[in-house]
Amino acid sequence: MAKIVTFGEIMMRLNPAGYGRFVQAHSFEVCYGGGEANVALSLSNYGMDAAFVTKLPENDLGQCALNSLRQFGVDTTKIVRGGPRLGIYFLENGASQRPSKVVYDRAGSSIALAKRSDFDWNAILDGVDWFHFTGITPALGGELPEICLDAVKVCRERGIKVSCDLNYRKKLWTREEAGRVMATLMPYVNVCIANEEDAADVFGIRAANTDIEGGKLSHEGYISVAQQLIDRFGCEKVGITLRGSISASDNDWAGMLYDGENAYFSPTYRIHITDRVGGGDSFGGGLIYSLLSGYDCQHAINFAVAASCLKQTIAGDVNLVSAPEVESLAGGNASGRVQR
Amino acid sequence: MAKIVTFGEIMMRLNPAGYGRFVQAHSFEVCYGGGEANVALSLSNYGMDAAFVTKLPENDLGQCALNSLRQFGVDTTKIVRGGPRLGIYFLENGASQRPSKVVYDRAGSSIALAKRSDFDWNAILDGVDWFHFTGITPALGGELPEICLDAVKVCRERGIKVSCDLNYRKKLWTREEAGRVMATLMPYVNVCIANEEDAADVFGIRAANTDIEGGKLSHEGYISVAQQLIDRFGCEKVGITLRGSISASDNDWAGMLYDGENAYFSPTYRIHITDRVGGGDSFGGGLIYSLLSGYDCQHAINFAVAASCLKQTIAGDVNLVSAPEVESLAGGNASGRVQR
Amino acid sequence: MAKIVTFGEIMMRLNPAGYGRFVQAHSFEVCYGGGEANVALSLSNYGMDAAFVTKLPENDLGQCALNSLRQFGVDTTKIVRGGPRLGIYFLENGASQRPSKVVYDRAGSSIALAKRSDFDWNAILDGVDWFHFTGITPALGGELPEICLDAVKVCRERGIKVSCDLNYRKKLWTREEAGRVMATLMPYVNVCIANEEDAADVFGIRAANTDIEGGKLSHEGYISVAQQLIDRFGCEKVGITLRGSISASDNDWAGMLYDGENAYFSPTYRIHITDRVGGGDSFGGGLIYSLLSGYDCQHAINFAVAASCLKQTIAGDVNLVSAPEVESLAGGNASGRVQR
Amino acid sequence: MAKIVTFGEIMMRLNPAGYGRFVQAHSFEVCYGGGEANVALSLSNYGMDAAFVTKLPENDLGQCALNSLRQFGVDTTKIVRGGPRLGIYFLENGASQRPSKVVYDRAGSSIALAKRSDFDWNAILDGVDWFHFTGITPALGGELPEICLDAVKVCRERGIKVSCDLNYRKKLWTREEAGRVMATLMPYVNVCIANEEDAADVFGIRAANTDIEGGKLSHEGYISVAQQLIDRFGCEKVGITLRGSISASDNDWAGMLYDGENAYFSPTYRIHITDRVGGGDSFGGGLIYSLLSGYDCQHAINFAVAASCLKQTIAGDVNLVSAPEVESLAGGNASGRVQR
Amino acid sequence: MAKIVTFGEIMMRLNPAGYGRFVQAHSFEVCYGGGEANVALSLSNYGMDAAFVTKLPENDLGQCALNSLRQFGVDTTKIVRGGPRLGIYFLENGASQRPSKVVYDRAGSSIALAKRSDFDWNAILDGVDWFHFTGITPALGGELPEICLDAVKVCRERGIKVSCDLNYRKKLWTREEAGRVMATLMPYVNVCIANEEDAADVFGIRAANTDIEGGKLSHEGYISVAQQLIDRFGCEKVGITLRGSISASDNDWAGMLYDGENAYFSPTYRIHITDRVGGGDSFGGGLIYSLLSGYDCQHAINFAVAASCLKQTIAGDVNLVSAPEVESLAGGNASGRVQR
Amino acid sequence: MAKIVTFGEIMMRLNPAGYGRFVQAHSFEVCYGGGEANVALSLSNYGMDAAFVTKLPENDLGQCALNSLRQFGVDTTKIVRGGPRLGIYFLENGASQRPSKVVYDRAGSSIALAKRSDFDWNAILDGVDWFHFTGITPALGGELPEICLDAVKVCRERGIKVSCDLNYRKKLWTREEAGRVMATLMPYVNVCIANEEDAADVFGIRAANTDIEGGKLSHEGYISVAQQLIDRFGCEKVGITLRGSISASDNDWAGMLYDGENAYFSPTYRIHITDRVGGGDSFGGGLIYSLLSGYDCQHAINFAVAASCLKQTIAGDVNLVSAPEVESLAGGNASGRVQR
Repeated sequence: MAKIVTFGEIMMRLNPAGYGRFVQAHSFEVCYGGGEANVALSLSNYGMDAAFVTKLPENDLGQCALNSLRQFGVDTTKIVRGGPRLGIYFLENGASQRPSKVVYDRAGSSIALAKRSDFDWNAILDGVDWFHFTGITPALGGELPEICLDAVKVCRERGIKVSCDLNYRKKLWTREEAGRVMATLMPYVNVCIANEEDAADVFGIRAANTDIEGGKLSHEGYISVAQQLIDRFGCEKVGITLRGSISASDNDWAGMLYDGENAYFSPTYRIHITDRVGGGDSFGGGLIYSLLSGYDCQHAINFAVAASCLKQTIAGDVNLVSAPEVESLAGGNASGRVQR
Repeated sequence: MAKIVTFGEIMMRLNPAGYGRFVQAHSFEVCYGGGEANVALSLSNYGMDAAFVTKLPENDLGQCALNSLRQFGVDTTKIVRGGPRLGIYFLENGASQRPSKVVYDRAGSSIALAKRSDFDWNAILDGVDWFHFTGITPALGGELPEICLDAVKVCRERGIKVSCDLNYRKKLWTREEAGRVMATLMPYVNVCIANEEDAADVFGIRAANTDIEGGKLSHEGYISVAQQLIDRFGCEKVGITLRGSISASDNDWAGMLYDGENAYFSPTYRIHITDRVGGGDSFGGGLIYSLLSGYDCQHAINFAVAASCLKQTIAGDVNLVSAPEVESLAGGNASGRVQR
Repeated sequence: MAKIVTFGEIMMRLNPAGYGRFVQAHSFEVCYGGGEANVALSLSNYGMDAAFVTKLPENDLGQCALNSLRQFGVDTTKIVRGGPRLGIYFLENGASQRPSKVVYDRAGSSIALAKRSDFDWNAILDGVDWFHFTGITPALGGELPEICLDAVKVCRERGIKVSCDLNYRKKLWTREEAGRVMATLMPYVNVCIANEEDAADVFGIRAANTDIEGGKLSHEGYISVAQQLIDRFGCEKVGITLRGSISASDNDWAGMLYDGENAYFSPTYRIHITDRVGGGDSFGGGLIYSLLSGYDCQHAINFAVAASCLKQTIAGDVNLVSAPEVESLAGGNASGRVQR
Repeated sequence: MAKIVTFGEIMMRLNPAGYGRFVQAHSFEVCYGGGEANVALSLSNYGMDAAFVTKLPENDLGQCALNSLRQFGVDTTKIVRGGPRLGIYFLENGASQRPSKVVYDRAGSSIALAKRSDFDWNAILDGVDWFHFTGITPALGGELPEICLDAVKVCRERGIKVSCDLNYRKKLWTREEAGRVMATLMPYVNVCIANEEDAADVFGIRAANTDIEGGKLSHEGYISVAQQLIDRFGCEKVGITLRGSISASDNDWAGMLYDGENAYFSPTYRIHITDRVGGGDSFGGGLIYSLLSGYDCQHAINFAVAASCLKQTIAGDVNLVSAPEVESLAGGNASGRVQR
Repeated sequence: MAKIVTFGEIMMRLNPAGYGRFVQAHSFEVCYGGGEANVALSLSNYGMDAAFVTKLPENDLGQCALNSLRQFGVDTTKIVRGGPRLGIYFLENGASQRPSKVVYDRAGSSIALAKRSDFDWNAILDGVDWFHFTGITPALGGELPEICLDAVKVCRERGIKVSCDLNYRKKLWTREEAGRVMATLMPYVNVCIANEEDAADVFGIRAANTDIEGGKLSHEGYISVAQQLIDRFGCEKVGITLRGSISASDNDWAGMLYDGENAYFSPTYRIHITDRVGGGDSFGGGLIYSLLSGYDCQHAINFAVAASCLKQTIAGDVNLVSAPEVESLAGGNASGRVQR
Repeated sequence: MAKIVTFGEIMMRLNPAGYGRFVQAHSFEVCYGGGEANVALSLSNYGMDAAFVTKLPENDLGQCALNSLRQFGVDTTKIVRGGPRLGIYFLENGASQRPSKVVYDRAGSSIALAKRSDFDWNAILDGVDWFHFTGITPALGGELPEICLDAVKVCRERGIKVSCDLNYRKKLWTREEAGRVMATLMPYVNVCIANEEDAADVFGIRAANTDIEGGKLSHEGYISVAQQLIDRFGCEKVGITLRGSISASDNDWAGMLYDGENAYFSPTYRIHITDRVGGGDSFGGGLIYSLLSGYDCQHAINFAVAASCLKQTIAGDVNLVSAPEVESLAGGNASGRVQR
């Protein structure tokens, strides 16, 4: 069984039920998630041996976050305990023309204040096949850029594949900071994941010689971006998610996988959204699973996009689907008929 | 007032709220339903004198199921009490590309283990105008096939009209078993109800000489199936529901009524689904009501399809609408404007 | 800061959660609203100094209604306390082809039984810039027609702008009564708000010389209606909301503002509805805000329609959006992307 | 099987969940109850044939009230439909030193405005063994006093036993009105039920020649009151409930049955209260059941008090217990051990 | 109407429903509270003009906290907006032998980082009669000790009465820090409020020459502590709350008011607790109300203790009772009988 | 870290919220538990390496049960998947004089139908220190008695300590069956756990030469029972729980540990109960933890009883407390004061 380690922050998420606004809320639904934790949980659901590494406070809230992963089989034994607090984010689910809204309260979290000495990467990565992180982890600041560098260097030494989802967050750092730091980490990345804006935000990479209509890249545009990422950092593969926001309730969703030679596009799903948070993460989880399973590129992108389509029909940050469920949708069964 | 008896199983249904997955559930919504009970409840809501016959355990859960019918005026005085347990089914509501999922836990229920001697059909059917059952009832096994035969024979003797919804359930019996048993019952059936797959599953009846495109029959195909049912079993009328599953969230819904000479098609409704379970049953309820009310075939199929369209906008197994509400929709008022 | 006073009834609203029917309900969600209170709350949310005037019983339920306004900054100090009861309305949210349903239980409320002596309009309207009421207020009967007349006369004396939403309610009065009473009040109204049916119901004003297709007026038809209102009553501006009910779940929504010379039409929004109640009121709130802010007519109608589009994505009667949120949608950002 | 008819008002009850105050409520739990309806439901739960007679509006709310009775087997076929509205009461559950609070909104209900011609007592009471009403029914005013008199006169003619719970409600009428009206009805009453204050409030009957300590009557005091009721009105039996309010959370509860010769006192239960509403009604239900079952007086009072003790451990107005459950407690099993 | 200003932090409180543990929670109930805000809200409920002063972030969460006060009539116009975040605390309600548990996440809140220049005390305190703060406010650190000093100096200049609840929080500062800072503020305090441990924790003040049994002071002990506070800081009055924790579910609750000459003890209430948080604050609110209303000392302590007894029967941090409700309990009506 | 394996059934538990009766329920809270699973979870919470062994169906419900254990760190890797269904039990929480009620629906579960070949005890018990089961496991019938015997024989061979909670369930087997089967297993048991009725039900062991008053044994009686268990089966220690049911809401709770020479009694706790299910299991968990931790007998019984006292303040079957929380109560801190 393939072993994967992902590294980053897991936060408490608090959201009013349904489509309630913050100012209407008398209770919050609580779940836990974060870009890399979500990927680990996806992989665990697919039957892989996935561990999530972070630092969590030694209180009940840290324990809740840990339990949420353990419940779905994620290996949490490598999580460091300590530090002041668990990061929180508040989510208000949008509807129709009203956008979803996020209020972050993540500053000063235990992982943001973690030290290089907290993580013994040689031990953590022993026997591991794949390492995944996102651009959010170094964006947390403090020693995180170095800690990420420590990790990917050990990966390079040990031949562990590395994937990174650029995931630019403008509230955490500037484009300049992101570009500078990510440029030190990207040379160690085998598989780069991005959405249509990340490459531009972080590296200023934009589609060359293509028409852009209505703010959307053409297929050629996506290929151009992927090729530039490969040219600049030497990645093997680039996965890109393509979201068409019709409204907060309905989105088009597709993806592309580029291997430096050919581009593979998934079908496009028109999704009536239950919860769009974690869509990109579940794409990452599906892609890593596919690549570790030796799927060809077309199968891989189809699986990754079907997985992340299903995620958006499920409440919470994490993708609670099995591999057969994903394969069924990827295989064309999108009618939603009752499975008796 | 017309008197109707329906016979079959009523189960406890447990489902996570909203679109929650089983693995996310910390509570289940509970309701009670079953193909024939749902029909009885529809008819009671339309103002008819409908009784449901089954066997329920002598415990609180059996009582809950009974109360759920009594609340809406169904006559429950003919229900036999005893036996080991109430059947249960677990439902996970799908959303968009994610299908709904059912886990049955109905084996060994009181009705499945019922004996012929439990039911005195001459008493039960005294003064009754219509008897309804579905293919699920004999599929429960044990003595149920004989019990159903006992019932329909009494109906034939007394001139009670019989309707049967084929309702093939592959988890309960094989196509062969279904075909063999149903063939003994069908000769007593006046009105046969089916969806596009039932006739093929149970009797191997498929549309003759018609084009099938994309897995969907043409209008001629449906007529062919209905004609074959009439030819083989001598039914008077065949009602067929036509579901087009766009996704778990949106379905097209229509129906056909065939009287051996002419086929009457309803309008097609594009339904944004609240709960699709019981759609076929509410079609049956609407059809029986229409026929007992002396509606002409076009009115009957329009009423039955409007009724079952409305059902799918209502949570739970049962159709909580009045006849005027159905007539309003059947009459063309589908705009959903507020009724002040 | 502009000061606005609105006058009318605020009711307790009780509705089953989600799309539940009354006969399924074991609890009701409770909120408070009414045409004029909803306008005051909109304006308060936009940062204006809005007071709501009514009469509420001296019990906990009256206090709850008052608190619901105070929570969002509405000035409640001019509310009179006393009388027998708080009006109630029960709402069942429709879905797809099933319409929403309202059961009113508002007879004999404290405001419906209020006396002219309860309201000292000279004091209430001191320093006020705008006064708003709807056709529902005089429709409550008793002394309300005279009380409304008292109020608008003071407005005329003091140069306070008056807006009125015709809002015909057939359960409260006949077309004849409405026409007679409203004709006494309209001469004091500067800005008249209506939907496509109100002008016909109240004043028998119908589009002249225009084609009506499928029950919907053409643009020219709306202009004709607005012009007739101006011709008859001397209003300065007429705002009309245009609702296209595709189903209870999906509506088209737009509006027109006519200033006697030119008609300004907003874009049309296809809304996936969370709660359509209060849509017209939030249009009124947006229009008054725009006019008090000195927006040009096109900006004003765009703001009012965007505001009321957002309202329909929010549960409850009242529009919990800020002016920047409305401006964002009015400015064309309808994609519903997450605001991080 | 004994047949019982009870007559009165059934209201919608709305209460905040748990111990929430009105001003905290964002939803209300909804149930339905009323003194006489509660008695009918108790008797139905004990297996008797109990019908409830009232007048309910022809809307969904009236239907909900009717369904709530039908669910538990009460015969609702004699209910008259029509009139303007369903009475409502709002309940705030107290806790510890904070008392429960009731806001009535029952004026103008369909039953309060009912006419003598609405009820054909000869038909309603045909074949009936027992008729029950409470002092609340005539207190509703209008023609209710005459309607009650109509009913009890038919009972006298037909030899139907009549029970009446005095149930004085000071918000409905004055002591004088109550005394005058009830004095016309009491001569037809066989079994009178009261609590420690009712007899004094309605008839000015107070304990003679006994010590009253701390506001509580001694046993002799209760007997004196009962004897006076018998002397004055010729009742056969008087049942009195004895509540000791330690706090809103904990009460002592007992009862006395007096047959004109001997007084039978039940044990006293220290109840940790779930919901005290309907305690007296469930006492009435238990007493009528006992008397119809031919229990001796000691058994009868023990059953009635055990029944009403159990009621107060159950949320809502009505007593959802079976006769064996009551017998178990009446038999001394008060330890609350799990029944596996 | 007396005008009061209170100053401190208001936090978001998140707690699992009922008696749920953090590790069981899938949702949190949300409310808002803080020592000084709770006092302001109590006073507003009693009909006084109470303003709360703090600094809240310019986001939806800050707005929610503000709205929670505004809903109950607290003047929020003096609240400063800005800074990074709203403080949060997580509460797990204990039961029986299991204690309640609090996890604070309040570091770095907008108020904790507020600057002296944020508050113009001369403007804020203009026309004010009473100023209240607690030991928590200076304990937040940063410039809060100076800000508090700024405020109380303005109070002294203007003759505004000052009350302070010592409220020692060991997670916020050490005993030494508390003692040093509070000693600078206490000379400006007219009325000092404390529980049995605060005076010892903050000032090392312990009962002299008295027996202490079972960790509880005798009456003389409390007087001794109060006298020492007066001797040392020159307060006029000292109010002390006396809690006897039988378990997390049941507490004894009483209080003492000492005016330097005589000590006035309230009755003791045995409370079956709904929510004990805010008990001390509601005591403070009741005491300030009583003193501003000119109650004599016995009436004042009785009112304050009855008020805080009632608070503990109400969920949330704040005391949602009216003055007549408190007076009723203070007057001896503790039986919890239904108020119809 | 000590390794423990427990073996038995885990069921889905469904209960109405709060004190709701089955016939009132519109939803059920769902959790998972069983005697041996509860012990494993307790031990995991105390930081030990606890595995639970059972057989669960290969469906979502089986997965839910497994996840519920995994969430709290129980090793679920030894669980066998397969078989027809998950056992279910329905629980109605009692209140005051109304007892809790359990409806079992566990027949035909995957574990009840498990085969000896499903469990390779040599592999399962490799490296294990302690094995625990209860009398419920063999009571499930089928091959379970032999499977248990297989397990305890391997334990004897490997020197693994064995504990057994007699836990007689009369709905699963007769006293005779229980006595016969348990007599074959007891010789392998080192630590026997029982409540006051188990030893009598299973082995006919009753207190010798002691007075029994009111159905409760004296201390000597408990010692006599324990001594007889030791005499007959050679156990090393016997732990007995002592429950005094005052009502469904309030219980006394204590325990005794007997080592063949001395009897150690814990203090008695008066518990205001949140959920009494699993009380005995949490006693077992506490006792095993204590013995594995080398606690002396008095410390052990105090810990076990404090642990199980806390369990009864927590909803659900399982004991979600840490060792320090138990030690705090066992150390005498029972006041329930807030832990800030």
